[in-house]
Amino acid sequence: MTPEATLARFREYMVGPTRFMNLLSCFELGLVDRLRDNPGLTAVKLGDAVGVKPDAVEQLLQLMVKEGFVAYDEGSGAYSLAALGDVAEGDLRRALAYMNLIKVVALRQVYYLTESVRTGQVVGLKELYGFDGNLYGAVAEHQDLRDSWLTLMNRVTANIDPWFFTNIDVPAGAQVLDLAGNTGLGAIHTYQMKTSPGLRVTTFDLPEKEEECLRNFREHGVEEHCSFVGGDVFASIPGGFDVVLIKHFLDMFDKEEVFRILTGVHRSLNVGGQVNILVPVYPEDITDSDNYNVDFFPSFFLGCTMGQGGPQKLSTYRSWLEECGFTVTKAVTKDSAEVPPDVIPVQAILSATKTA
Amino acid sequence: MTPEATLARFREYMVGPTRFMNLLSCFELGLVDRLRDNPGLTAVKLGDAVGVKPDAVEQLLQLMVKEGFVAYDEGSGAYSLAALGDVAEGDLRRALAYMNLIKVVALRQVYYLTESVRTGQVVGLKELYGFDGNLYGAVAEHQDLRDSWLTLMNRVTANIDPWFFTNIDVPAGAQVLDLAGNTGLGAIHTYQMKTSPGLRVTTFDLPEKEEECLRNFREHGVEEHCSFVGGDVFASIPGGFDVVLIKHFLDMFDKEEVFRILTGVHRSLNVGGQVNILVPVYPEDITDSDNYNVDFFPSFFLGCTMGQGGPQKLSTYRSWLEECGFTVTKAVTKDSAEVPPDVIPVQAILSATKTA
Repeated sequence: MTPEATLARFREYMVGPTRFMNLLSCFELGLVDRLRDNPGLTAVKLGDAVGVKPDAVEQLLQLMVKEGFVAYDEGSGAYSLAALGDVAEGDLRRALAYMNLIKVVALRQVYYLTESVRTGQVVGLKELYGFDGNLYGAVAEHQDLRDSWLTLMNRVTANIDPWFFTNIDVPAGAQVLDLAGNTGLGAIHTYQMKTSPGLRVTTFDLPEKEEECLRNFREHGVEEHCSFVGGDVFASIPGGFDVVLIKHFLDMFDKEEVFRILTGVHRSLNVGGQVNILVPVYPEDITDSDNYNVDFFPSFFLGCTMGQGGPQKLSTYRSWLEECGFTVTKAVTKDSAEVPPDVIPVQAILSATKTA
Repeated sequence: MTPEATLARFREYMVGPTRFMNLLSCFELGLVDRLRDNPGLTAVKLGDAVGVKPDAVEQLLQLMVKEGFVAYDEGSGAYSLAALGDVAEGDLRRALAYMNLIKVVALRQVYYLTESVRTGQVVGLKELYGFDGNLYGAVAEHQDLRDSWLTLMNRVTANIDPWFFTNIDVPAGAQVLDLAGNTGLGAIHTYQMKTSPGLRVTTFDLPEKEEECLRNFREHGVEEHCSFVGGDVFASIPGGFDVVLIKHFLDMFDKEEVFRILTGVHRSLNVGGQVNILVPVYPEDITDSDNYNVDFFPSFFLGCTMGQGGPQKLSTYRSWLEECGFTVTKAVTKDSAEVPPDVIPVQAILSATKTA
């Protein structure tokens, strides 16, 4: 890589924040919707329609024209959707949910990345919200964080859980523990997708999640098959289960904490018991330019959500499981051809058995 | 452009903010300097050296390895500089000054872009600093904004002024007005680069700039040839000058304000008087993918500095000058081959004469 190529790459990075908000703002202002409904509007008419000066409309649409997202007719001054008009509505909604998450949960917070890394705290939450703690605590108190976070997580869960449950084995009549199962959605999916006579799923999370979790079980009509146990995964994990699920959780922690979780699960299981993990992973070849996980997750976990953590490679999780006493029976990464091209996380499943 | 290509491009945009701070944080934490001094350090040793957990060092360096900026030896766990080691120190310093500006002046502020566009105010300055006004007012009160802004602007001015003065004509003994000349740097450069018997340069700006401006003239030994006039370009521009300079100023305003400035200058000049403008411009072909001005300036001016404004194409400025009564004698864009590849703005010069 020549110095010139490195410097050109720096420029690509430098325009990252402004470019991101320029795109999102065109949606937030309603410019894209207006052009969908009325192709051929000028900057003046667009500005009138959305309550913005035409000068600003022209400025914001420059980048959309550069990208080929929007077309501009020099002679008439008319704008119309180009590439943006061809994207299916569901795809746009998914991408916008992600962009909104990045805007609300990351854009300002990441300013404090260096200080967050030095202190191991999410300094941005303290500075911007006066909140001491991590994002998962902050969402309970701050509506804007909660709205953007839950909208995204529910969407991610709905998209990924069918793949997860197709790929894991839950024996008929098994007793299943969903570790850090939040308010029960994972337990509900487990019961719905793996139903068998006697199957019972228990959500394990902090005691304050119990009420909402039980309400969710009732609303989904699974209250006879699902239950809640309150506790702290770092203190003690309840025993007596055949299968433990760990979804969207290991990536939140540094190695030491991941080991405490895995050895705790190992201790809680009887011989023959299984753990099934769903987690985003970095590619084995970190230089894979089609994979964007390392462009996002390090700053996101360190600077915006936890002040620690971040995904690992599949091979790293595999060896950590083995170091914690498990025998890995499956380690599979989702085929990127099956993931829409705007989606950043590449997810993996690891299944392992306590053999001794 | 296929919908898949559009969605993939969205992903590129989405990682913009996190990627930007990941890179900058590696410099801020001192990881790059440590690796320059001691190639082959592991994450543990790097973490010790800069006071950060090795887990976080590993996370932040993943992206550097992906980019080929840093090399990682799987066997020994040792990191060393790859492409980053080949960039000249002066180039790195210039790029880091720009990155710091973007971090301090834009990264958090741009979160409020949509609201800023709706109100025509820099909402981010109000929300983050409690400041009512634009960036140029805010730098007077807030040290962090001032430091990042002045560091960059002094660097930009030092780089671009020699090109500007080589390309404009200042007749011997001319009376020159530097419009919105701030604290005199442009006047000093004019005198130094265009010296002739009788040449006199006057900085015109808000009265509160006078003291610092005159001090700068004395410190540079040009107080006999330079003077200051206080005023407001939108109220009245002083007459009696042969040449008016407008540097780094027109791009801050919407069309209506640009016209007020240009007609005001036209009114102030005698027939035969000249105006010389230095301003970043958008490329004539807005889809030029090597030009990053539209990736940066719309959000930057609308969301971070002015709540209005932004550059135009060279052809637009040319026709605006003509609409305001001038005859354009020169319109030249800096050759991008002469601009280092990390630098975003592409500057242009327009010279014009009052012919009637």
